[in-house]
Amino acid sequence: MSVDLRSDNTAGAAPYVLEALAAAGTGTAASYGDDEITARLQQRVSEVFEREAFVFPVVSGTAANALGISALCPPWGAVVCHEGAHILVNEAAATSMFSGGAALLGLAGVGSRLTPEALTACFERTGWDDPHHSQPAVLSVTQATEMGEVYEPEQIGALATLAAARGLRVHLDGARLANALAALGCVPADLTWRAGVEMVSLGATKNGTMTADAIVVFDPAVAQELRFRLKRAGHVASKGRFQSAQLDAYLTEDRWLRSASRANAAMARLLAGLAELGYHPVVPARANLAFVAVPDEVSARWAQAGVQFYVIEPGVVRLVTSWATTDADITTALHHFETPSSGRSLTECAHRR
Amino acid sequence: MSVDLRSDNTAGAAPYVLEALAAAGTGTAASYGDDEITARLQQRVSEVFEREAFVFPVVSGTAANALGISALCPPWGAVVCHEGAHILVNEAAATSMFSGGAALLGLAGVGSRLTPEALTACFERTGWDDPHHSQPAVLSVTQATEMGEVYEPEQIGALATLAAARGLRVHLDGARLANALAALGCVPADLTWRAGVEMVSLGATKNGTMTADAIVVFDPAVAQELRFRLKRAGHVASKGRFQSAQLDAYLTEDRWLRSASRANAAMARLLAGLAELGYHPVVPARANLAFVAVPDEVSARWAQAGVQFYVIEPGVVRLVTSWATTDADITTALHHFETPSSGRSLTECAHRR
Amino acid sequence: MSVDLRSDNTAGAAPYVLEALAAAGTGTAASYGDDEITARLQQRVSEVFEREAFVFPVVSGTAANALGISALCPPWGAVVCHEGAHILVNEAAATSMFSGGAALLGLAGVGSRLTPEALTACFERTGWDDPHHSQPAVLSVTQATEMGEVYEPEQIGALATLAAARGLRVHLDGARLANALAALGCVPADLTWRAGVEMVSLGATKNGTMTADAIVVFDPAVAQELRFRLKRAGHVASKGRFQSAQLDAYLTEDRWLRSASRANAAMARLLAGLAELGYHPVVPARANLAFVAVPDEVSARWAQAGVQFYVIEPGVVRLVTSWATTDADITTALHHFETPSSGRSLTECAHRR
Amino acid sequence: MSVDLRSDNTAGAAPYVLEALAAAGTGTAASYGDDEITARLQQRVSEVFEREAFVFPVVSGTAANALGISALCPPWGAVVCHEGAHILVNEAAATSMFSGGAALLGLAGVGSRLTPEALTACFERTGWDDPHHSQPAVLSVTQATEMGEVYEPEQIGALATLAAARGLRVHLDGARLANALAALGCVPADLTWRAGVEMVSLGATKNGTMTADAIVVFDPAVAQELRFRLKRAGHVASKGRFQSAQLDAYLTEDRWLRSASRANAAMARLLAGLAELGYHPVVPARANLAFVAVPDEVSARWAQAGVQFYVIEPGVVRLVTSWATTDADITTALHHFETPSSGRSLTECAHRR
Repeated sequence: MSVDLRSDNTAGAAPYVLEALAAAGTGTAASYGDDEITARLQQRVSEVFEREAFVFPVVSGTAANALGISALCPPWGAVVCHEGAHILVNEAAATSMFSGGAALLGLAGVGSRLTPEALTACFERTGWDDPHHSQPAVLSVTQATEMGEVYEPEQIGALATLAAARGLRVHLDGARLANALAALGCVPADLTWRAGVEMVSLGATKNGTMTADAIVVFDPAVAQELRFRLKRAGHVASKGRFQSAQLDAYLTEDRWLRSASRANAAMARLLAGLAELGYHPVVPARANLAFVAVPDEVSARWAQAGVQFYVIEPGVVRLVTSWATTDADITTALHHFETPSSGRSLTECAHRR
Repeated sequence: MSVDLRSDNTAGAAPYVLEALAAAGTGTAASYGDDEITARLQQRVSEVFEREAFVFPVVSGTAANALGISALCPPWGAVVCHEGAHILVNEAAATSMFSGGAALLGLAGVGSRLTPEALTACFERTGWDDPHHSQPAVLSVTQATEMGEVYEPEQIGALATLAAARGLRVHLDGARLANALAALGCVPADLTWRAGVEMVSLGATKNGTMTADAIVVFDPAVAQELRFRLKRAGHVASKGRFQSAQLDAYLTEDRWLRSASRANAAMARLLAGLAELGYHPVVPARANLAFVAVPDEVSARWAQAGVQFYVIEPGVVRLVTSWATTDADITTALHHFETPSSGRSLTECAHRR
Repeated sequence: MSVDLRSDNTAGAAPYVLEALAAAGTGTAASYGDDEITARLQQRVSEVFEREAFVFPVVSGTAANALGISALCPPWGAVVCHEGAHILVNEAAATSMFSGGAALLGLAGVGSRLTPEALTACFERTGWDDPHHSQPAVLSVTQATEMGEVYEPEQIGALATLAAARGLRVHLDGARLANALAALGCVPADLTWRAGVEMVSLGATKNGTMTADAIVVFDPAVAQELRFRLKRAGHVASKGRFQSAQLDAYLTEDRWLRSASRANAAMARLLAGLAELGYHPVVPARANLAFVAVPDEVSARWAQAGVQFYVIEPGVVRLVTSWATTDADITTALHHFETPSSGRSLTECAHRR
Repeated sequence: MSVDLRSDNTAGAAPYVLEALAAAGTGTAASYGDDEITARLQQRVSEVFEREAFVFPVVSGTAANALGISALCPPWGAVVCHEGAHILVNEAAATSMFSGGAALLGLAGVGSRLTPEALTACFERTGWDDPHHSQPAVLSVTQATEMGEVYEPEQIGALATLAAARGLRVHLDGARLANALAALGCVPADLTWRAGVEMVSLGATKNGTMTADAIVVFDPAVAQELRFRLKRAGHVASKGRFQSAQLDAYLTEDRWLRSASRANAAMARLLAGLAELGYHPVVPARANLAFVAVPDEVSARWAQAGVQFYVIEPGVVRLVTSWATTDADITTALHHFETPSSGRSLTECAHRR
């Protein structure tokens, strides 16, 4: 039996999303987001974040990141992020395009997290106010990180304080914000505006919706600008209610947090089992994904047994759970992990990937 | 009783779309379009268009138009279209943005249609190969037009032939292509590649889907470029199967054409009734929308009676039907249209819009 | 003997420019504009405009217009100008490129001038605050116009007042500002900031320099932004003093105004002579260029006689004088104009252009 | 007596440039580069490079690099260069802007030079044909490097071969190409197209002209594209002959190479003198600039004595000679270098920079 630990975006959509879509389709409604469901979503987001907030549904996390940041960063600015940040490594310079040519500056950190030291050093080597150099204008922090680490609220606050002192605006790539919240037991405000974050890419697709992520922003002027940026980027769905309905259902009754908790718990159980076998994450994993050090011949055997995952680099695999991962999935995966070699020669597996 | 004739995008989604989404959500699937439903959609589009075609689901018609055209037009190019074209009038220069600054040239035509004469005149006043002038590089034709007119296949062919002779590539804004096909009784190939069209913005949301339109292109090199352009524009949904499933269901068993036929028939009945009352379209309307000449005091009365529509300019209203418009809707609308004035003074209505 | 009336940019450079370049080359100097000559130019421009001003030398009028406007117009904005404006017709959408995709809206006017009525009508049909429509953000006025007309200060003021009331910023394409000043007997402040103009593309190359035009702006925040925009557009010369020296010499001791006066006077004498022959400008020409109605067979004869100029459209020629046009040039030109037909058949000339 | 070793762009212009400008200004000439001097320059460049070449004068090296590369790199591409390359570090992402958002990938090398190993490693970690990753599309090599190193022709050839095998196009940032040619005793063809280079940013301002650098390209299709890209970037001077005249004079009778030889010789003499004092370049310097390891207290003393230069980082100064550096300059500089401390306390110098 196969278990899919490739990514949280290989899962289907949560049942409540389908129900919300069905309910949203009754009767006619004004288009382009001038509908009641979208209005309700706006209200709900403000409640969830405990202050007035503006939400813009988009069809991908890349859109949320790139369009959102483009409203914070002038064309001659630079976006400072971790050297492994999704916006730098996996989005094909989308942020540079939408911003009109901004630079992306990747900093080394500790594991997958940015540090105040790295940020300070970056600022010290910057030619401030020198037109020959891109001007750092946005700090983008990923929470949970691309390797499953989680920043404490005060860690985000420390980075944001340094950034704000230099005039940078602070963006949070929250593709897995729900998982971070669940891991930390924080409320959304703690990890965002109370810690100095001005804009959030609010992940939802990985955690239950079908085609809807969102930009959440607290500054009305930025929100106003985003109205125009989104339309001309083709990111305003004409039947906007169907995007809003997904997000509204997602954020209702803590569904997003409960889904994330399930995913985190599945990962915790998986990692506990792996630890007994002697395999450990390369950085502390507290959310729903982990980069685990595993010899290639072992991971090849796992793959052969039917566990799906990605080998990131020789000796390191990435494992991801989702809201849809079941206890049976974890049990099966651990069973496969424990199974000794089939005796096949390694040569046979050599070209597996 | 209210009847909504504002736009075909105020309708909900067709039931088969919801069913397809439910079916698509079972089990895990590779993300970013590497899934079986997307593969099936690719196959289906090729069948529908009777030749190898490449399809890219997007979340809006603006995305389809602007991203699609950006793959046909160099940054220093110009896109030639009708002066009332959606890309020129209603998309906030999205095409200019994605193309890196291309110009949009709106031509007057006959009614809402481009003519060979206008195109020829445009070419004659162009400073070809002169870097001081934007170089016409793409012809974009809207079918059905923004005012409900329809081009015959040979009319598109004549425009495309002129364009191709000057090296322009030919794009079709098919936001309502299904309605045009239904009106003409053509097959998709007749209105597209057989008539010289190289790329289609294939509308679907107005005609039944929730959040999915598409770019369809026949040239593999353009398709390859679009892969990159879409990703960095944030227009690749991570759970791509949910976008593909909508389109696949839409194109299955001629659903899209049957839906369009219903919408067209509703409009035809509406216009017949209006003609009896003495109100006529300002240009011949053959699809599911019409611009109808109506005195403002009359249209104000209609609005008061509960018919929703837009006053485009003094004396002209736009009426649109959709796949979801019922016979009862038309009956009700016509009833309201026939009702004599309530006797209220015009002054009361003066600020209605 | 040939007379060149094609354009004021076919003339050479004024002798004082060459002298200034020779003087500027002595010794070493800090690069990228941190030199004494550039500082002197900054001071001089403030004196010339009678208030603190910021000047940015650039290598072309297109750079001045497009980069300058890009600092006033958001990517989703529209630049409103006359339908014959250079930025719309002759700069290959440079302004759209540098602004990140802004639209250019050309309005019909009276002759080559914008009118308050046209501007008001444009604003009335704008979908303000509607993301589907480009938002008018900059008004660009050309002074003198592309056809040699001149706005009175109060005419510019009326346009600027209308624009400012809608939040637009006001740009002046002053490719021939010196000629307008000379024609009107105004000081620069009268035609610029006192009339509501916030930024000037200050033409100089047509009127005496070699490779230097300039952006002049009064708002320090815009000036600060331009520092970055110019550098990343490659428009900051490393030996900046050689650009500044040309402009500094040009603006010294009213040279620019005296040069423009000479050009205007030459045109006035030319037009007076043409009037005697029965040929008149199609719009009133008060600067150094005119569009004159002349039958094609007559203009063909002129061309054959050795006068160089452009036929703009059938029956209309453009004639331009410059600072370097001599009395002898005008005498010769008028002599050629008066000469009766050589008797050659028209057929021979038919394909001249 | 002060000696300026800050940069080769602090020097004035060579006398022959001024003479050429004076000569160019006689009479009228067609504008925008349709003149005889520009035609002569085109011919001369082809002779200098020993094959048909296309030359585009521009006003800065940044324009040459950024506009040139934009014609080789799609918006979703990446430009691979050394981590210290001027395009990456000193041009404020100009290349990203003009290309429509391309990424810049800086690689570590040996000293200031790229190595085949680094390039191969970059290619190995690239996600080829994966839209989530910027696609390496251009290799940009700097010759001489930003630290004064020089690539042998076969070293460039090795890099270019690797690049071409992956479909990358090869650009040479030749801001100091003349110095490299002089150092190596090569002909231009050896360091460019014979080594696989397809486009050259041909530096001239640092080595003698006033306001003119150039793009040189061998592929007619790229040249055609550049015509449009330059115009809309405002990089086509209307009196183009004055830009062409500078470059034409520069390339005539090997002036550019003789000027570079003088600069190189001055640097060689300077380094020989420094070596006797125990100060050495941090990487081998073969052209007209060097990064020299010097204790901060020593360099502070030099600065105090009247030598102008930049401290790049603690313990490292940059020294640059130019075509205008005289023997007396070097003698004076070395004299200052040898002078023992004035006895002032170091504290006084501590905040010099």
